[in-house]
Amino acid sequence: MSHPALRLDDTVHQRVRLGILAVLSEAKRADFSYLREALNLTDGNLSRHIQVLEEAGLVRVEKGFEGRRPRTWVEATRRGRDALQAELGALRDLISRVDHAG
Amino acid sequence: MSHPALRLDDTVHQRVRLGILAVLSEAKRADFSYLREALNLTDGNLSRHIQVLEEAGLVRVEKGFEGRRPRTWVEATRRGRDALQAELGALRDLISRVDHAG
Repeated sequence: MSHPALRLDDTVHQRVRLGILAVLSEAKRADFSYLREALNLTDGNLSRHIQVLEEAGLVRVEKGFEGRRPRTWVEATRRGRDALQAELGALRDLISRVDHAG
Repeated sequence: MSHPALRLDDTVHQRVRLGILAVLSEAKRADFSYLREALNLTDGNLSRHIQVLEEAGLVRVEKGFEGRRPRTWVEATRRGRDALQAELGALRDLISRVDHAG
């Protein structure tokens, strides 16, 4: 049987992107500064990873205003939620395999 | 409370390196070609990631012979086993947080 590590996909597995998708699972959408603070990132780093996720169709980005204040909202797409679940499934199998070895 | 994604360390979290440490948890040591096949990697890719792990003190590499055949053995150090457990702890927390959100 193939090792569960083979089912990890870099687009989702990468540390910052996994964090973004995990935070987005907790709310319908999150604004850019909330994500930046929750994950302790710089603007540049967060932007770059959101762009990778957006290009892969895993998140949707919407710019708008709240009063006069510009806001950038980020939301997981259906495909993004499915990709997160697939990643967590592979991780559960990997963890359980290490646990059984120990 | 800070998000468990903040406790993920790239040295261990990176997909190939997490796979190597997970496979090494199942045996005292593994030879290079076993790792390469278990994780479906090229020689170059495996070498590069083993070097990163070795430089971080997480694995130990030993070259030797089995009969006339040269072999490279890789073994997790104590620090490597601890780092894997810390990573799996952070992942368990992340998974449980996503599960509770869902």
